[in-house]
Amino acid sequence: MQLGMIGLGKMGGNMKLRLEKAGHRVVGYDRNPDVADVDSLAALVEALDAPRAVWVMVPAGEATRSTVEELAGLLSEGDIVVDGGNSRFTDDAVNAKTLAAGGIGYVDAGVSGGVWGLTEGYALMVGGAEADVRRLQPVFDALKPEGEHGFVHAGGVGAGHYAKMVHNGIEYAMMQAYAEGYELLEASEYVDNVPEVFKSWREGTVIRSWLLDLMDRALDSDPKLDHVKGYVEDSGEGRWTVDEGIRLRVPLPAITESLFARFTSRQEDSPAMKAVAALRNQFGGHAVKSD
Amino acid sequence: MQLGMIGLGKMGGNMKLRLEKAGHRVVGYDRNPDVADVDSLAALVEALDAPRAVWVMVPAGEATRSTVEELAGLLSEGDIVVDGGNSRFTDDAVNAKTLAAGGIGYVDAGVSGGVWGLTEGYALMVGGAEADVRRLQPVFDALKPEGEHGFVHAGGVGAGHYAKMVHNGIEYAMMQAYAEGYELLEASEYVDNVPEVFKSWREGTVIRSWLLDLMDRALDSDPKLDHVKGYVEDSGEGRWTVDEGIRLRVPLPAITESLFARFTSRQEDSPAMKAVAALRNQFGGHAVKSD
Amino acid sequence: MQLGMIGLGKMGGNMKLRLEKAGHRVVGYDRNPDVADVDSLAALVEALDAPRAVWVMVPAGEATRSTVEELAGLLSEGDIVVDGGNSRFTDDAVNAKTLAAGGIGYVDAGVSGGVWGLTEGYALMVGGAEADVRRLQPVFDALKPEGEHGFVHAGGVGAGHYAKMVHNGIEYAMMQAYAEGYELLEASEYVDNVPEVFKSWREGTVIRSWLLDLMDRALDSDPKLDHVKGYVEDSGEGRWTVDEGIRLRVPLPAITESLFARFTSRQEDSPAMKAVAALRNQFGGHAVKSD
Amino acid sequence: MQLGMIGLGKMGGNMKLRLEKAGHRVVGYDRNPDVADVDSLAALVEALDAPRAVWVMVPAGEATRSTVEELAGLLSEGDIVVDGGNSRFTDDAVNAKTLAAGGIGYVDAGVSGGVWGLTEGYALMVGGAEADVRRLQPVFDALKPEGEHGFVHAGGVGAGHYAKMVHNGIEYAMMQAYAEGYELLEASEYVDNVPEVFKSWREGTVIRSWLLDLMDRALDSDPKLDHVKGYVEDSGEGRWTVDEGIRLRVPLPAITESLFARFTSRQEDSPAMKAVAALRNQFGGHAVKSD
Repeated sequence: MQLGMIGLGKMGGNMKLRLEKAGHRVVGYDRNPDVADVDSLAALVEALDAPRAVWVMVPAGEATRSTVEELAGLLSEGDIVVDGGNSRFTDDAVNAKTLAAGGIGYVDAGVSGGVWGLTEGYALMVGGAEADVRRLQPVFDALKPEGEHGFVHAGGVGAGHYAKMVHNGIEYAMMQAYAEGYELLEASEYVDNVPEVFKSWREGTVIRSWLLDLMDRALDSDPKLDHVKGYVEDSGEGRWTVDEGIRLRVPLPAITESLFARFTSRQEDSPAMKAVAALRNQFGGHAVKSD
Repeated sequence: MQLGMIGLGKMGGNMKLRLEKAGHRVVGYDRNPDVADVDSLAALVEALDAPRAVWVMVPAGEATRSTVEELAGLLSEGDIVVDGGNSRFTDDAVNAKTLAAGGIGYVDAGVSGGVWGLTEGYALMVGGAEADVRRLQPVFDALKPEGEHGFVHAGGVGAGHYAKMVHNGIEYAMMQAYAEGYELLEASEYVDNVPEVFKSWREGTVIRSWLLDLMDRALDSDPKLDHVKGYVEDSGEGRWTVDEGIRLRVPLPAITESLFARFTSRQEDSPAMKAVAALRNQFGGHAVKSD
Repeated sequence: MQLGMIGLGKMGGNMKLRLEKAGHRVVGYDRNPDVADVDSLAALVEALDAPRAVWVMVPAGEATRSTVEELAGLLSEGDIVVDGGNSRFTDDAVNAKTLAAGGIGYVDAGVSGGVWGLTEGYALMVGGAEADVRRLQPVFDALKPEGEHGFVHAGGVGAGHYAKMVHNGIEYAMMQAYAEGYELLEASEYVDNVPEVFKSWREGTVIRSWLLDLMDRALDSDPKLDHVKGYVEDSGEGRWTVDEGIRLRVPLPAITESLFARFTSRQEDSPAMKAVAALRNQFGGHAVKSD
Repeated sequence: MQLGMIGLGKMGGNMKLRLEKAGHRVVGYDRNPDVADVDSLAALVEALDAPRAVWVMVPAGEATRSTVEELAGLLSEGDIVVDGGNSRFTDDAVNAKTLAAGGIGYVDAGVSGGVWGLTEGYALMVGGAEADVRRLQPVFDALKPEGEHGFVHAGGVGAGHYAKMVHNGIEYAMMQAYAEGYELLEASEYVDNVPEVFKSWREGTVIRSWLLDLMDRALDSDPKLDHVKGYVEDSGEGRWTVDEGIRLRVPLPAITESLFARFTSRQEDSPAMKAVAALRNQFGGHAVKSD
């Protein structure tokens, strides 16, 4: 089928390629004219036959919101917009409402796969009306991995991004799990070769996983991780997951501590630990390190 | 080659089968005469040609210790004992010393695989002297999975159980990660079908893993987990991992919180939370629930 | 000076008494006519001389919001409204704007003191314009404890409730600290008389505090806490504190774990721990407890 | 009464002064001859009338152990040794046994008070036989604060250091509580003057405490904590508390996270966070910061 793809960066560009390889016709738009097929959203809409399907793959937040608003003015009744970005699930109801005024459908799609998606396929978690999702199924089938899994229609509008958010929360804690194990092994006098231990775990163990395979790859190229700094960004989903835990009174200790470890990793110095040091100095005369 | 196997329970029994299927001759001893080939450790030692290799697969702690001590009196110089149980790594130096007095070698082997090991193979993490490990390699090769991974000689005596201990610590936090995600999805009004979401994650996602496959299996047979109580034992490795974090000053928040969640799951009522409730009642006149 | 007090429950009623004892004239309104001086907000406004000051002490959220809106229609330019309830700091900007349209000032006041405030005084953390706060100072002086501390003008509108929110977050973690210590002492075979240990800590120690005094009181009347269930509500400020930690990327492990412990205390069974138990059963054939 | 005091550092020296001010005769020994009354343990024992009482106030571990062993050879039946250092409670049974062979009593005393103890008194938590503790009561009475609290006979040998250990565990989490509140207030745009907020909390609030008074002092002298580095040592009790939580299956999330925060504060870079950064780079092509 035909699809408009807005945003041809690392993710959108590769998804376009995978769709085209599967025989779909994809009209791409990007602010960078070098990679775009058309030079405006209006031109993109023009280039597609009705009823149209347009996939938005731009940064979450303001960029996605303004793109949806512009599309609301360009598309027609019966068209569908997919937000495949890392939007917060609470944005989806807003976007859906904006489009519904013009009879335009809306589907939110959480997409996992990163740089591996082009060849291995993208896992898709989508939310929206049954009819809208069904119409887009050929696109989803082309994007998803070839096995029997990797796609779910998780619920109404917002459910796709919600499931993806939880996926990322789990991911934070899994990464933290391997990372803590790594640090402990490196600190111990018992184990001689930490990278070999990780490599061995890739088969037969309870903790084998794709992330473990990647950990092995990382250690293959940099066995002591000498070339990486312990500085970790977070892209929003982890924070939103904890916010949801708070809202729904669900205790999330492992996920939350993983998020806090990232916050801490980005601090030059910890104001809280300065306070603890100052307190210890007050009552015990413990020496403090000063700058 | 020949091997004595002591302890023919769920693990030892299946390992014997896997070894025999690979062409090794295994003489088995168990307190239960129905499953044993011989009726005493002495008979087992008698039945093997020197230099002998004896694999101990009995409960960690007292049972393993006393078995090793008895073997020290029965075996001869040049023989080797393997402890394949879930022993604490600190037991290994003691066992090795007991045996070394008689010129008997000692190898510790952390074994992962559970009920799946018979068909899929057991991941092995071993510690000990190079020569001892090399002599046992045919046994390890028969037990391990068929791929290129699943075996590591992690270091000297104790390194095998150490690596297995860290493996289990990581396992605790990974299980907690999926479990927290599960609880959040179940609590949310956004996602309709939580088991389908988990199933979809099995391909193309960052969090795909063997544990996730098992989670899918569990939800297939009991979609709301109605038939399971939220009561979780721990077998020691998690506690030892945290002890090591404390000893080596390695922060292990995700693993430790996962362990604490298990402790809490086994409490009828929480003394700590009783104290918090009593405190709130004191300062705020907040009602307390009383028994 | 004169003050209108709206809401004469446990907090508002005692604050009225303390203000009157200090010589202020307080006109009280409550939905319960038995405790009220006037029978409507209109009558309350009528009974005060301009420029008026009205203290709102009703449940946070809808009740406070609608009271402020009604006051906006009844009060005149130059009057001031104080919200002394446990409102979220984000409500304050909304309330301030509602009132500012009519030239009415707004001050938010976080109030600590509970059932002890009548006799010991209420700690006050206020936010608002300098002039508004200054006009209310006689009221604050009468409410606050007699010492040199217990009052702070923390910043603009919202700062009072913000400071009170953080106060409560700290309170959660302090209570958790004593509670964990209590549980450990009770679990240990080393210490014979846990209540006596807590009592002894009230002087000379690093951990002496008012909360510790209350803990001692609680243990005096119920040494084993036999009459309290480990079930703990939370009133919002703890959740908001963690939300702020997430928003501002401030790691708050002790406060957050204290909040999660409360969430857990209110669960009949833990869905997350059911998931862990189900997983263990899948890979290890570990028995599960079923209902 | 008479007392021998071994170790005249910051703690022991001040305790000697406080005892002498109360009319006791204290013979002091220290490796530093400038502060000592006698030049050897033998001379100290010689200078006391039987039955003797000797208070050991030297660093926990090897120094305390060897001092007790030397005293076992010098003292006589009916004498008593007090270990007032920060020893691990598990050392006490060993020390008691060493001395019991010669009929010498043993009492362990956890001492809190730091640099403030000289004037305000030292809180004492003691363990040992009833008769031994009773004989030392005049010494305890002189050391403890003047109020009705500050002393407890917590149980048999080891109970004193156990209670002190838990006291310090609680202290860790209380300091962390204030520290997290401090960091959040400093990070927020709502509150103008964080030190004033802390100062106001000293009266009328739920969180008033001696530690809060010290926090106020610290902020008085350095309002932004510009002269303190966020680097915090730990002296053992926190680690032992968590070890006990693990041994007794008591969840201690707030105390443990406070300890982990100290571990993290002492790391130049976090190996765990390096691993997370390396993993993110593998699957997402996320940029890593390299050294």
